[in-house]
Amino acid sequence: MAGSSKTYSGKEVAVHNSRESCWIIVHGKVYDVTDFLDDHPGGSRIILKYAGKDATAEYDPIHPPDAITTNLKPEKHLGSVDLTTVEKVEVKITDEERARQERIAARPPLSEILNLHDFEAIAKYTMAEKAWAYYSSAADDEITNRENHAAFHRIWFRPRILKDVTKVDWSTTILGQKSSMPVYITATALGKLGHPDGELNLTRAAAKHDIIQMIPTLASCSFDEIMDAAAPGQVQFFQLYVNKDREITKRIVQHAEKRGIKGLFITVDAPQLGRREKDMRQKFEAEDPSEVSKADQGGVDRSQGAARAISSFIDPGLNWSDMAWFRSITNMPLILKGVQCWEDALEAYDIGLSGVVLSNHGGRQLDFARSGLEVLVEVTTKLKEKRGLSFPNEKFQLFIDGGVRRATDVLKAVALGATAVGIGRPFLYAYSAYGPEGIDQALQILHDEFEMNMRLLGACSMKEVIPEMVDASNIHLHIVSVPSDNLYESNYERLQGVRLREIKNKL
Amino acid sequence: MAGSSKTYSGKEVAVHNSRESCWIIVHGKVYDVTDFLDDHPGGSRIILKYAGKDATAEYDPIHPPDAITTNLKPEKHLGSVDLTTVEKVEVKITDEERARQERIAARPPLSEILNLHDFEAIAKYTMAEKAWAYYSSAADDEITNRENHAAFHRIWFRPRILKDVTKVDWSTTILGQKSSMPVYITATALGKLGHPDGELNLTRAAAKHDIIQMIPTLASCSFDEIMDAAAPGQVQFFQLYVNKDREITKRIVQHAEKRGIKGLFITVDAPQLGRREKDMRQKFEAEDPSEVSKADQGGVDRSQGAARAISSFIDPGLNWSDMAWFRSITNMPLILKGVQCWEDALEAYDIGLSGVVLSNHGGRQLDFARSGLEVLVEVTTKLKEKRGLSFPNEKFQLFIDGGVRRATDVLKAVALGATAVGIGRPFLYAYSAYGPEGIDQALQILHDEFEMNMRLLGACSMKEVIPEMVDASNIHLHIVSVPSDNLYESNYERLQGVRLREIKNKL
Amino acid sequence: MAGSSKTYSGKEVAVHNSRESCWIIVHGKVYDVTDFLDDHPGGSRIILKYAGKDATAEYDPIHPPDAITTNLKPEKHLGSVDLTTVEKVEVKITDEERARQERIAARPPLSEILNLHDFEAIAKYTMAEKAWAYYSSAADDEITNRENHAAFHRIWFRPRILKDVTKVDWSTTILGQKSSMPVYITATALGKLGHPDGELNLTRAAAKHDIIQMIPTLASCSFDEIMDAAAPGQVQFFQLYVNKDREITKRIVQHAEKRGIKGLFITVDAPQLGRREKDMRQKFEAEDPSEVSKADQGGVDRSQGAARAISSFIDPGLNWSDMAWFRSITNMPLILKGVQCWEDALEAYDIGLSGVVLSNHGGRQLDFARSGLEVLVEVTTKLKEKRGLSFPNEKFQLFIDGGVRRATDVLKAVALGATAVGIGRPFLYAYSAYGPEGIDQALQILHDEFEMNMRLLGACSMKEVIPEMVDASNIHLHIVSVPSDNLYESNYERLQGVRLREIKNKL
Amino acid sequence: MAGSSKTYSGKEVAVHNSRESCWIIVHGKVYDVTDFLDDHPGGSRIILKYAGKDATAEYDPIHPPDAITTNLKPEKHLGSVDLTTVEKVEVKITDEERARQERIAARPPLSEILNLHDFEAIAKYTMAEKAWAYYSSAADDEITNRENHAAFHRIWFRPRILKDVTKVDWSTTILGQKSSMPVYITATALGKLGHPDGELNLTRAAAKHDIIQMIPTLASCSFDEIMDAAAPGQVQFFQLYVNKDREITKRIVQHAEKRGIKGLFITVDAPQLGRREKDMRQKFEAEDPSEVSKADQGGVDRSQGAARAISSFIDPGLNWSDMAWFRSITNMPLILKGVQCWEDALEAYDIGLSGVVLSNHGGRQLDFARSGLEVLVEVTTKLKEKRGLSFPNEKFQLFIDGGVRRATDVLKAVALGATAVGIGRPFLYAYSAYGPEGIDQALQILHDEFEMNMRLLGACSMKEVIPEMVDASNIHLHIVSVPSDNLYESNYERLQGVRLREIKNKL
Repeated sequence: MAGSSKTYSGKEVAVHNSRESCWIIVHGKVYDVTDFLDDHPGGSRIILKYAGKDATAEYDPIHPPDAITTNLKPEKHLGSVDLTTVEKVEVKITDEERARQERIAARPPLSEILNLHDFEAIAKYTMAEKAWAYYSSAADDEITNRENHAAFHRIWFRPRILKDVTKVDWSTTILGQKSSMPVYITATALGKLGHPDGELNLTRAAAKHDIIQMIPTLASCSFDEIMDAAAPGQVQFFQLYVNKDREITKRIVQHAEKRGIKGLFITVDAPQLGRREKDMRQKFEAEDPSEVSKADQGGVDRSQGAARAISSFIDPGLNWSDMAWFRSITNMPLILKGVQCWEDALEAYDIGLSGVVLSNHGGRQLDFARSGLEVLVEVTTKLKEKRGLSFPNEKFQLFIDGGVRRATDVLKAVALGATAVGIGRPFLYAYSAYGPEGIDQALQILHDEFEMNMRLLGACSMKEVIPEMVDASNIHLHIVSVPSDNLYESNYERLQGVRLREIKNKL
Repeated sequence: MAGSSKTYSGKEVAVHNSRESCWIIVHGKVYDVTDFLDDHPGGSRIILKYAGKDATAEYDPIHPPDAITTNLKPEKHLGSVDLTTVEKVEVKITDEERARQERIAARPPLSEILNLHDFEAIAKYTMAEKAWAYYSSAADDEITNRENHAAFHRIWFRPRILKDVTKVDWSTTILGQKSSMPVYITATALGKLGHPDGELNLTRAAAKHDIIQMIPTLASCSFDEIMDAAAPGQVQFFQLYVNKDREITKRIVQHAEKRGIKGLFITVDAPQLGRREKDMRQKFEAEDPSEVSKADQGGVDRSQGAARAISSFIDPGLNWSDMAWFRSITNMPLILKGVQCWEDALEAYDIGLSGVVLSNHGGRQLDFARSGLEVLVEVTTKLKEKRGLSFPNEKFQLFIDGGVRRATDVLKAVALGATAVGIGRPFLYAYSAYGPEGIDQALQILHDEFEMNMRLLGACSMKEVIPEMVDASNIHLHIVSVPSDNLYESNYERLQGVRLREIKNKL
Repeated sequence: MAGSSKTYSGKEVAVHNSRESCWIIVHGKVYDVTDFLDDHPGGSRIILKYAGKDATAEYDPIHPPDAITTNLKPEKHLGSVDLTTVEKVEVKITDEERARQERIAARPPLSEILNLHDFEAIAKYTMAEKAWAYYSSAADDEITNRENHAAFHRIWFRPRILKDVTKVDWSTTILGQKSSMPVYITATALGKLGHPDGELNLTRAAAKHDIIQMIPTLASCSFDEIMDAAAPGQVQFFQLYVNKDREITKRIVQHAEKRGIKGLFITVDAPQLGRREKDMRQKFEAEDPSEVSKADQGGVDRSQGAARAISSFIDPGLNWSDMAWFRSITNMPLILKGVQCWEDALEAYDIGLSGVVLSNHGGRQLDFARSGLEVLVEVTTKLKEKRGLSFPNEKFQLFIDGGVRRATDVLKAVALGATAVGIGRPFLYAYSAYGPEGIDQALQILHDEFEMNMRLLGACSMKEVIPEMVDASNIHLHIVSVPSDNLYESNYERLQGVRLREIKNKL
Repeated sequence: MAGSSKTYSGKEVAVHNSRESCWIIVHGKVYDVTDFLDDHPGGSRIILKYAGKDATAEYDPIHPPDAITTNLKPEKHLGSVDLTTVEKVEVKITDEERARQERIAARPPLSEILNLHDFEAIAKYTMAEKAWAYYSSAADDEITNRENHAAFHRIWFRPRILKDVTKVDWSTTILGQKSSMPVYITATALGKLGHPDGELNLTRAAAKHDIIQMIPTLASCSFDEIMDAAAPGQVQFFQLYVNKDREITKRIVQHAEKRGIKGLFITVDAPQLGRREKDMRQKFEAEDPSEVSKADQGGVDRSQGAARAISSFIDPGLNWSDMAWFRSITNMPLILKGVQCWEDALEAYDIGLSGVVLSNHGGRQLDFARSGLEVLVEVTTKLKEKRGLSFPNEKFQLFIDGGVRRATDVLKAVALGATAVGIGRPFLYAYSAYGPEGIDQALQILHDEFEMNMRLLGACSMKEVIPEMVDASNIHLHIVSVPSDNLYESNYERLQGVRLREIKNKL
């Protein structure tokens, strides 16, 4: 208490720069983190780098705003610092950063971006490496991550002709809320890694395009910041990671409901956050190799990238019996996010939930989990068989997410029974590459694609996008080519077509 | 009226060179297009480039000859220009164009062209980029475009032996008209992009080789030019895009019948022309980047390549109820071009049409539409089951197009019930690469391949090419990287394992 | 007659060096080929190159020894030439040839050759281009050629354990004749292209290793040369192309029987020899481009590689009714080579033939014909169903050829009912790369592989190699780009996403 | 006898340096191997290289310690040598070795190793070539070797949600013995090739992590050395190659039992050791090319890599009737290692054995043998059908090995009925790349992966890992899985065919 009202000078803080006494500055406040060093989920090294210094720039994009006050005992909140007296952390512009800035300057104009893939292509080269690694990484061999997209390619269309498609309408309702397309912005963590406005970019674009944003627990911006940025009447959902301390969870949920959230999506596929090696590996690359070597001497370092750093509060003990409790603390529709087989979807239906998201967390959790699209086929088949349900179904709604890049992907999911589809990474890439105009353009592209493809499918509204319009017979074939026969292939002289004369080599 | 009889000097026209007052010259006539700038489907920029100048060279290959007179009010037809006074648009020969001319000079002699693939290989390097982009582009990820060809590779032969194949005959009849092979030249737009004679190249080659040309609505040459170029007795079909203004359509259809067209192919898979990104992207590449940047400042530019520029008249409201009207205005056989499932083929049969083309528009419309070949198997199976029909069938003929490169592809389709197969792009590539001799050679190659393969199949005539000669059991397996998803693959960052430090590059 | 006894000087011959009067020397004889120029299946150009000169070196590897005397009227056999007076055709050693000689010198020692693939790898770089092109080429897109090998990779083993395999024996009998392994040397044309001793290399190796050689109609060595080179008691088969002139065929067959041939294999998959584009293309590459251009001016040149040059005599009228005639002129076992479906195999059985070779001519005839291995599964299934036969069967023997590279390939075929397997190209590559020692080593490698794999399979003799030892459930899945369609793929322009401007190359 | 007590000087030995009289020194003893030269399974050349010299360094990693005394008659054991008088074999450090040492120095710190693939990636570049070739090689085209891994990619998960996974336990019992995970260290030969402590590295790591090591017959360390290195109470199994001389086998087995071995795994898939061309080819590369050429002159050299050199004693006559004898000489549980079809698994069950390892010897024996994982599905299905067994089963336990790289691979096998899974090469690579800390880290990674993936699967113990948690419907499709497994692919060293010498780079 006393400490929290005191004001320090930069010099006073600067002497506490060691493992023995480690103070840091965040947003003008001084904290003694000496005892916390070994408990930091992200490891002690990254904190020690800022011992005695201002850590705000590093802290911000990775931590929810109240992380430090929540985790540190009050007596360690030492007070304020006079920021004018704090020596600036000299930011060295590395060669890599300089090269990145050049690449940013070389971005093509936004009008040349023709599809959602294009944003990703630009983001890959213009985002900071750490940010790209966190956004793009997935579990283990990233098989499920890629399968999520590949699964859409195993569904083919059976379009109808000679229907009057002068007017086509791709709007729908999701949990009773209007949406201009069967798409919502799904929850993704650490939005500020890609752009200083973080999730607010999504909130504003959602308002403009009349679609629904699902606010993540692990947002870089605080929940209230995001709610405050919403337009009047704008509909938002909330994604929840359940805390081991149920009182915290209760407080969060009831606050969300009070602020007007229209649907609570409880994440059930992440009792522990996944090992994402691209993310973990990026961490090693970025650090000083000599330090890493030293760390080795003291035993294996278990720091595991950004994902672990932010998720230690998640409760692996969450189970079906908790659902009644949720029902008791809120009237919001409850949806399970991360269901991956028909048995669990059936259970969710039977206990009266409002729906499920058939999702594998963007391939970031269990590798070799199947795609939501494939599970969708299984779920609609079995719930029809067991409970006589047909889909899309107002009372028990099915969603999928993961791997979506085209309006045709969405139309396939809708034809197979989904109410709507969540899109995450592509929107992050859109604003990371081009800021707010990027996400605006991304949504406009989807609108254009919906208009075109509804016409070509011969469907005037979402109700007319029906199972007979797709051939899903290959969905369960997870295939490719036999381990290739190298000896034979390297010997086989490829048949060559005709070529230009004289300047053959130039081609 | 008054204006149209006046004759201007080049200088008088040249001063109208701005957005405020924009005149252009086409074929010696002067037009005031100031008010039309924002309505131009291809965007205003391309017109402004020719403000005050002669735009004929740019106009010709992209527009039907009467486009400008049809779209511009009469009072904007200002009159004639004395062409001798018009300053020549200085055509700068770019480095790229110079390189292209060198590649043209380096073409191998025509005798080295051994198959239809070869023409494409040469055309790719010798056509103007814009032309190549328009001809070769397809919808979205170009999956269907490649599937069209790949589907043929899932059909294998069961040839018969010890039949006397001294004489083999691959001629047939199509809608009652003789054809020297079970192939027709299908409709494709903008023929002059590849060669100044445009579609006339096809007309002449069709006459020489006794096959049937289907004349496209969007030809670069006018319909009558093409008809006039036909040999006495030469059979031609007509492909129709239906105009929102049915009177225009009626006039076109009845004129076609009067001129002797033997079959009307109504396109039903294009209520709106597809987004073809290769075509759209080429546009950006070709323009001055600084201008593109400026354009961005004024909002997103929605110009979408050549396809959109020429198709805004097509009626998305066309539907089954229009068919009776067509029956009332013409006696030509009516065929639907672009049917993609058995349900629609059955409907076409039930209302008394003469046939359907199972086609996805060369993969240029709805991506992930199935190949005509696959739909053919579905259609023959179901129409036998529902109506007892067997195929090939004189009264209700089935055609397919898309992806054909070899006579064996055609023979597979015929064995499975098609009357004939349409070939489009390969013939465009043939004359684009080698002019009229090219298309002649292309047809001769097909003849050679038919002779050879009929013998090897053990079939002496089209009637002997039967279902038992093919194994189509894999046709519904859309497996694999058949064909791969390039956009996604080129974006996906391959997961990298750990690597050695410092000397990484050496590995 | 008179002419044939005259002796000319080189100078006398040399003046007849034009299209108007064209004499050539072959093996010391002078021939007037002026009138024959346009009838030469290989085109006139290649003859004119030797007008007035000694053409022996070019003639030998491509023509059966008696080709010229058979095809040229007696009065055109002008007589002999005094070879000492003939100016040597100056053989320019080209850079390419010099490079080839260097590569030959760089061959690894034969002991490093570990499998049949290795010979092919060396042959590709050490053979003359024309020879490699002829041996390795196949029909059209070479899909069947590669499928032949790929099919073996769809069969997996179910080996048995704990059998006493101290002694394993892989010898068998083929048409009642002993063979040290279930393999025979199948017929292939133009053996001298790879080595001056041509087919004699095979004869001698067959003798040493106790296997059977099938002598080809289109051998470079004459039939009698080959028979004369055989060891006492050595068993040989004969492959027959049936001549339009049945008397010639009769003479050949009866001569073969008289010389002791033990089986007559009548080729039935080649009423016309295939278009093999790799072979045809090589021809263009090798010729003087300026001449090719000139040729174009006079119309399309239809020369089609070595295959056509040697096969114009083959009768496309051969049919089932000829079989009785064959039965009447010889007592040798009759086998059809090139059967490709069960219906024809059944017919062959029903009319009393001794067996069939399920073959597609090494992929050199009809592209998309299925592999012999796949047809084998169909044939054994259907002949069991229709006639109660089980295989291997002494009375009606099944053979396959094409794509064999390993003893395991052979064992798979035997397990599925084949009596033996023909191997062609690998043996040509073996002697082309290393001469007689090469083919010796190739056969030794097969013996080693048989010993090893019989033990690992748990089979002590051919009788114990049974259907239960293989899993053939994937044989009808022609999946994937296994094998891929190179021509199409190399033409297809990959759709490119947007890219950075200006510094594109850096990425 | 006399000889064995004599002590020689280095000079006395050195004169016996020829084929006529060849002595060598191993571990300070002198042996006369003149008569043994031609019997040496590894060929005479390698011995002659050390004629008159100390061969210990070459001998040690390849031979079991008693190989020389066992194989050489007592009278050839000449006695001892005074090592101080022996001239050191001058070890020339080659450029390649120097480069390798640099690569070793450049290894990333162990903390950057994130998965088992990573060890392989490092081992490939830091092991001696010969060692890498021996460990990594497999039979023929290495199809089965790669299929072993690929098969896991055809199994997908069906994870369950909302189970309390706060505590997850992945320990199990194997043949009644406790193990901290369902994994054992399987037998692999020549452990010293990768690290001077050889198999002892595995023994110590197994003790630390409470898992079971299977000691190989062909260990580099002697059986007793390994037993002596075990911790008190540490459980070990023994893998047996059965000697032609059953007395030797009896002595080995009874000694093993006496020393406390808890399970005897009899190898049944290797009546003869496989041809592993990568291993054989490495041999040629390493030798002096001029010598190889000379060897050729004396006939084909049949030396076949390390595998053959060490295995000539194995009895190809071993069969089912031997099993009763084994039962009579030991009470250890008997398990067959290398069963590959249900028929043999059933037989093993019926005669009362304790289990089988469904294995193809890591792809090192019969190429195109199926993966253990695929055979597992067949075996559990058939043994349920024929004998009503369910799996995992205490009385008859199923194991698989081959291709395992992730804990998820193990969990798939357990879900399908395996009691545990053997891992071999990855552990060798771990200590070859990083010594004892490497294998420690490898096991820790597996523990981490088990914890994570048990939670994500929704299983708290091995009993809860059940068939319903996997989708194995694609297991019999031998076509690999979309999307490709990059880590594995980038590590896999493509089998190379023979290539030209000296100018390799030019090709």
